[in-house]
Amino acid sequence: MAKKFVYKFAEGKADMRNLLGGKGANLAEMTNIGLPVPQGFTITTEACTKYYDDGAKIDSSIQKEIFKNLEDLEKVTGKGFGKKENPLLVSVRSGARASMPGMMDTILNLGLNSETVEGLATLTNNARFAYDSYRRFIQMFADVVMEVPKPLFEEILDEQKHKKGVSLDTELDENDMKEVVKKFKALYKKQKKSEFPEDVREQLILAVEAVFRSWENPRAIVYRRMNDIPSSWGTAVNVQTMVFGNMGNDCGTGVAFTRNPATGENKLYGEYLMNAQGEDVVAGIRTPSAIAELKKQNKAVYEQFEQISKTLENHYKDMQDMEFTIEHGKLFMLQTRNGKRTAKAALKIAVDMVKSGMWTEKDALLKIEPKQLDSLLHPQFEASALKKATPIAVGLPASPGAATGKIAFTSAEATERAAAGEKVVLVRLETSPEDIEGMVSSQGILTVRGGMTSHAAVVARGMGTCCVAGCSAVVVDENAKTLTINGKKYTANDYISIDGSTGNVYGTQIQTVPASLSGDFGKIMSWADKYRALSVRTNADNPRDAKQAYDFGAEGVGLCRTEHMFFEADRIMAVREMIVSKTVEEREKALAKILPMQRKDFEGIYKEMKGNPVTIRLLDPPLHEFLPHTDAEIKELAKEMGLTFKELKETVDNLHEFNPMLGHRGCRLCVTYPEIAAMQTRAIMEAAVKVNKEKGYKITPEIMVPLVGEKKELDYVKEYIVKTAEDVIKKAKSNMTYKVGTMIEIPRAALTADKIAETAEFFSFGTNDLTQMTYGFSRDDAGKFLKDYYAKKIFEQDPFARIDEDGVGKLVAMAAKLGRQTRKDLKLGICGEHGGDPATIEFCHNVGLTYVSCSPFRVPIARLAAAQANIKNPRN
Amino acid sequence: MAKKFVYKFAEGKADMRNLLGGKGANLAEMTNIGLPVPQGFTITTEACTKYYDDGAKIDSSIQKEIFKNLEDLEKVTGKGFGKKENPLLVSVRSGARASMPGMMDTILNLGLNSETVEGLATLTNNARFAYDSYRRFIQMFADVVMEVPKPLFEEILDEQKHKKGVSLDTELDENDMKEVVKKFKALYKKQKKSEFPEDVREQLILAVEAVFRSWENPRAIVYRRMNDIPSSWGTAVNVQTMVFGNMGNDCGTGVAFTRNPATGENKLYGEYLMNAQGEDVVAGIRTPSAIAELKKQNKAVYEQFEQISKTLENHYKDMQDMEFTIEHGKLFMLQTRNGKRTAKAALKIAVDMVKSGMWTEKDALLKIEPKQLDSLLHPQFEASALKKATPIAVGLPASPGAATGKIAFTSAEATERAAAGEKVVLVRLETSPEDIEGMVSSQGILTVRGGMTSHAAVVARGMGTCCVAGCSAVVVDENAKTLTINGKKYTANDYISIDGSTGNVYGTQIQTVPASLSGDFGKIMSWADKYRALSVRTNADNPRDAKQAYDFGAEGVGLCRTEHMFFEADRIMAVREMIVSKTVEEREKALAKILPMQRKDFEGIYKEMKGNPVTIRLLDPPLHEFLPHTDAEIKELAKEMGLTFKELKETVDNLHEFNPMLGHRGCRLCVTYPEIAAMQTRAIMEAAVKVNKEKGYKITPEIMVPLVGEKKELDYVKEYIVKTAEDVIKKAKSNMTYKVGTMIEIPRAALTADKIAETAEFFSFGTNDLTQMTYGFSRDDAGKFLKDYYAKKIFEQDPFARIDEDGVGKLVAMAAKLGRQTRKDLKLGICGEHGGDPATIEFCHNVGLTYVSCSPFRVPIARLAAAQANIKNPRN
Repeated sequence: MAKKFVYKFAEGKADMRNLLGGKGANLAEMTNIGLPVPQGFTITTEACTKYYDDGAKIDSSIQKEIFKNLEDLEKVTGKGFGKKENPLLVSVRSGARASMPGMMDTILNLGLNSETVEGLATLTNNARFAYDSYRRFIQMFADVVMEVPKPLFEEILDEQKHKKGVSLDTELDENDMKEVVKKFKALYKKQKKSEFPEDVREQLILAVEAVFRSWENPRAIVYRRMNDIPSSWGTAVNVQTMVFGNMGNDCGTGVAFTRNPATGENKLYGEYLMNAQGEDVVAGIRTPSAIAELKKQNKAVYEQFEQISKTLENHYKDMQDMEFTIEHGKLFMLQTRNGKRTAKAALKIAVDMVKSGMWTEKDALLKIEPKQLDSLLHPQFEASALKKATPIAVGLPASPGAATGKIAFTSAEATERAAAGEKVVLVRLETSPEDIEGMVSSQGILTVRGGMTSHAAVVARGMGTCCVAGCSAVVVDENAKTLTINGKKYTANDYISIDGSTGNVYGTQIQTVPASLSGDFGKIMSWADKYRALSVRTNADNPRDAKQAYDFGAEGVGLCRTEHMFFEADRIMAVREMIVSKTVEEREKALAKILPMQRKDFEGIYKEMKGNPVTIRLLDPPLHEFLPHTDAEIKELAKEMGLTFKELKETVDNLHEFNPMLGHRGCRLCVTYPEIAAMQTRAIMEAAVKVNKEKGYKITPEIMVPLVGEKKELDYVKEYIVKTAEDVIKKAKSNMTYKVGTMIEIPRAALTADKIAETAEFFSFGTNDLTQMTYGFSRDDAGKFLKDYYAKKIFEQDPFARIDEDGVGKLVAMAAKLGRQTRKDLKLGICGEHGGDPATIEFCHNVGLTYVSCSPFRVPIARLAAAQANIKNPRN
Repeated sequence: MAKKFVYKFAEGKADMRNLLGGKGANLAEMTNIGLPVPQGFTITTEACTKYYDDGAKIDSSIQKEIFKNLEDLEKVTGKGFGKKENPLLVSVRSGARASMPGMMDTILNLGLNSETVEGLATLTNNARFAYDSYRRFIQMFADVVMEVPKPLFEEILDEQKHKKGVSLDTELDENDMKEVVKKFKALYKKQKKSEFPEDVREQLILAVEAVFRSWENPRAIVYRRMNDIPSSWGTAVNVQTMVFGNMGNDCGTGVAFTRNPATGENKLYGEYLMNAQGEDVVAGIRTPSAIAELKKQNKAVYEQFEQISKTLENHYKDMQDMEFTIEHGKLFMLQTRNGKRTAKAALKIAVDMVKSGMWTEKDALLKIEPKQLDSLLHPQFEASALKKATPIAVGLPASPGAATGKIAFTSAEATERAAAGEKVVLVRLETSPEDIEGMVSSQGILTVRGGMTSHAAVVARGMGTCCVAGCSAVVVDENAKTLTINGKKYTANDYISIDGSTGNVYGTQIQTVPASLSGDFGKIMSWADKYRALSVRTNADNPRDAKQAYDFGAEGVGLCRTEHMFFEADRIMAVREMIVSKTVEEREKALAKILPMQRKDFEGIYKEMKGNPVTIRLLDPPLHEFLPHTDAEIKELAKEMGLTFKELKETVDNLHEFNPMLGHRGCRLCVTYPEIAAMQTRAIMEAAVKVNKEKGYKITPEIMVPLVGEKKELDYVKEYIVKTAEDVIKKAKSNMTYKVGTMIEIPRAALTADKIAETAEFFSFGTNDLTQMTYGFSRDDAGKFLKDYYAKKIFEQDPFARIDEDGVGKLVAMAAKLGRQTRKDLKLGICGEHGGDPATIEFCHNVGLTYVSCSPFRVPIARLAAAQANIKNPRN
């Protein structure tokens, strides 16, 4: 039997979503549960795929199938397609597997031509309505199918109103509409060099093709990339009998949710407009009424709708988003789907649904999109204050949240003014590691240059601080300490406000409200903890982040990057002394200066973590990152350090690398300078011993060696770690234990994980570097060409955001398996930025990892995602 | 039963080499086949390993075992260790599994002290001999065991001769020797703050320890690294009864080979010295006689030795290198081992051995070290001319062979003068890709900076041109066109000569002789071709290399790097125009200029390859490699190109990458600029069609896409290739076929090879990049820290020279398997520098590759290595 490409609504059902699209499946489902749905049929997503495979053509056999279904529809409705008597008019709408609201195209009133319009006029006894419908159809068809610019039609309509001396469309009469139709057709002919199609079958096929085409329009492509929807899915097309909400005052149209999508309140919520078509509701010319009003206007219809809405929520077991039309007092359901909701609503609905017994706790956990929680974890602008503000510029939404404060132009200034109690927003051309302190002190960060993966963006996201990056409309004059936006100058005494979720920049102070973890949130998190198998840790480099993460439920630190501590103003000089040292003795002397500072950092983190495990990574970046690079800076530093320019310049030159990413860093530094590992181990252990004695927390430090690619590398470094750690323990007369483990971030480490596990007591997958090396591109450089990869559909998602399961994931799975072959109880974690991505967390669960580690603000997201993973695929 | 750590010679045999070391196993074997061997015993290599495991101590149970064997030896010899009457003296020598000549230490005459020396004097009735032996022993023991500098002893001896007014040691009498002994002991005491040990058992244990220690001396470590000998093997120690060749004129000592080790001639070859100990032969004070002389001096001994030498060669079935001593007319064999031989001798011996029926062809192939053939493939200095020359400087032996010519200071000058018929040696501070033409035109290349993997070294090796790199003694004044070495100035009119096998630089013209593939070489190669399963191709970027490789037996081109062609002076401008293009049209215009030049390159290569397959790789390096980087150069080029400085500078800046290795290169360029792939495909196909029509060669071009990491990347590029290729074929009315394949050089490509093979028709493993990405270090940068890795024994071999089987090899094997799962007949090759390494070739054979591809000068080596691999592990 030939493949079936067209299904009547009565032939489908809800679980055929992949084939019929969301809308089609729901129309079928509603039809089958007996709800009043205008009849029609769905052309499948497979037909869309075939359309592209066939070189953007609808195969003749599919065309035949479409017309066969149309004939059946004529029979069911008793109307005739293209017939003057009782003409059948249809809507043609897209409907993909996943909801993509507004991304694709719709055509209404299809089936009208110069004959049927007359029939419609006669039938409805309303020529104005008939010609209004016709002109709407011409406009939509010309726009969607033929790409005639919409404004050209709007001009004609405006002209007509002007001529008539009226201001509303509704004030135009039958004759006006007839004239408009004539002008629209003339415009069409002028633009397309052909008559507007009279053949309604031709209209239909062209419209279906246009919907298929709209699957690949630019905004749909962008939406898909943002939502991880593969282009191979395609869209279905729904052809449905038109019903009209604009045939008189006993007609109307509306949208409603079974519960409040903003708050989650369990009460029908929505709005409607009498004598209107759907687009009028959206256009905002007339103000729609709240759905509750309908009860007064037409009690019977309201009650029927209320009943249907309950039926639908019970049937779909979720909050529904519905569209309806009332035609001459008769209610038609045009669409239902699970309703989008705010994070806050999602939590409340979930808790309510469990309370009412509709959902189990597991159902509730699976219903919440983990990423959505992010919006609840950062300060936001106070809603009424925001309404009054207008953005003066837009940058990239680099790190979510809202911030308001006076402008600080340098990191030092930000630190100083913040210490004096002022709230500041740091504005920089771009940030560098030396800005860390200023970034920590600021409410938010605004940069002129740099993208979503720039230093400012990455660090801000890590800290959970709001950041707008790459806002090129801002002109900064660092010397004059002013910034100019659109010609207006701002000084250090002026306020700005930034929204890291939208990228908006405001030139005024806007009140913010702190994140609040409401009761529903707490309940959901407690359920998540009950059902998850993965542990959730955090990446934290300082006590502030550690505390934040602990408050968000982190069960330990999975990655503490010690080098971030090296950049702070009070220690960078000691670090530089260490780098320019010519002998082990000189180097040890410089390291001795750093030791007490590092120890103090670790003490703070141990205290905040209250005895939970803390994994500390030894120094990772290449040493040249700590030195200046321009001659002027080198000259200045040389003077400060008591060196000649030539000496320091030589050190800088010697440290230069062609590919720093693949250079002298990570454990390679410890192989060359084992005294660095020894100093860091001493700081780690001494701090642990001290906090253990002071607070009684039972601490088992986990010392992590980065960038290992060969077991013997780890053996060599571990020897120094063990020697130092044992010395500290012995001197302190402590019985503290500790673990030595490694990052798995080099492909070779994954490939030889069985050997490495002989030495390593734990693995932590550094999937940032592992992704770079497995793909062979550096994150710093890939931005330039990856845009072509997205445009050309070679990549459909960002491998740095979501783990690449086919390549990088294969290495992770392999390493996990090999490692556990050697050491059955090997602790396995992930600490790349992927650790906070729900899809990656599911992967980590499935390959048997022990924990994920993510930035503090992603901890709640990770807890939920871990629970979902274990509910879907329970671990024994 | 406890492990046995000491074996009497009579207890061992030849196949116990791993346990007894080469020397010990051979002494045992000789003992057992009844040859006259001074008796003794061997302390095993396992004892050495245990010595290190125990923290550099000889376990007391092993000491006990040693002394038990010593007692047995006393019984067999009838002598007493430390006894005045008939004292037993022994030699203590190292003996590892693999021969490491001169790398470790030896002590003779052990067992002498102030009592036994008197006993020896009485016994031999030769007090001078006894005290001479004693002073030799003190000197050796002090040097080897106690690290007292040898020259201090030499001084005393010289003083004594001076005092006596004589010039030779032999002119010193009994009393002189006694005085020397006294002074030696005093020196020892002064240096070591203790008396020279009188206890002979103490002497023995200290000596054995010293030999164990010498396994880890710096020269042994270097030798092991160079010869791929793992440090875990350890050395055995042989304790053997001393026999003396210096007790009178009926005594003597010598070394001999069963065949001539330089030429392979089947005739006893060697030399001996009467009344001498082994070290006298080596010291070169007296001139030894040719072994044939012995026949006249002592016919019986000569004939016995000749008989023994035949016995040994027949027994070991290989040419033997033997040491013997004659003590009072009695012949003793001290050592035999397979003799080292020159490449030339190796070939002749192999052919002769097969002729005589001693070896099969397979035996012969396995007996030749493939790497050794290299010396036969390059021009050499004429031997007598070289003898007269003295080096004026030494650099790194970067690419083998010898060259002589007048000095050229720039690439352009070299090209011009070479075109005019002059022979030049190019001398540069360092070379860059723009020097290629000059390098091709020169006899040899000398650089002041850069190591074994510098541009000059890598390119020269690829071309088979002699190169000495990093010769810092050379001071170049490029402006004045002079160079100075040790204060002497040389101009463009002066000759220099360089030896790329030794690094020597000479200030004169030295005649060279071309490589000649003698008849034996040809025969061995024909056998190799008979037994190998792997195909051998070459990496060749130009017709010259292609011809060289074809002459050396290459069966195709495995890698033709098209970018090398881009650097040539006549086309670099067109390449730069392409890079600065702002539109596709501009870019296509510039590409059109390059097209005919590329086509011509390919024509030349196809012609030289005479219908053998040619794999051509599309453009690989990042575009910034084709542009200058300093402001001055940019300014100059901008002027030349009719651009403003700012415009060109902006292009250069935009192309800047943090990690070029991981940047916008390989197929990523083709994704952004598919027109480049199209142009190159056109050149490849048009050239093939033309050569096919002109010469009738049946050519199937293999178009190779570099740096693929994802199947869809290859899909995208392949589409352009196929479209272009089909167009060329159609226009030419040809029926030519072609293949599109990919490099596997990104870990992700190996991990997803099953998918990539759906599109790729062949794989070629680019193990240079694959090694860099799998290890996560760049070759350009790793030099700085890998020296620490060797010193600290984390790496024992260079992963860029020999494939890392555990990591990189695992990916290669995985990709080969996955690829063949998808496409059963997938052609698999390797084209990294590893392709010419014998150990890697064996690996490639074992994992089922179709061919290896290497630089032209390694083709014969690869043919032999491939044969050896298939003989060891035959493919079905």
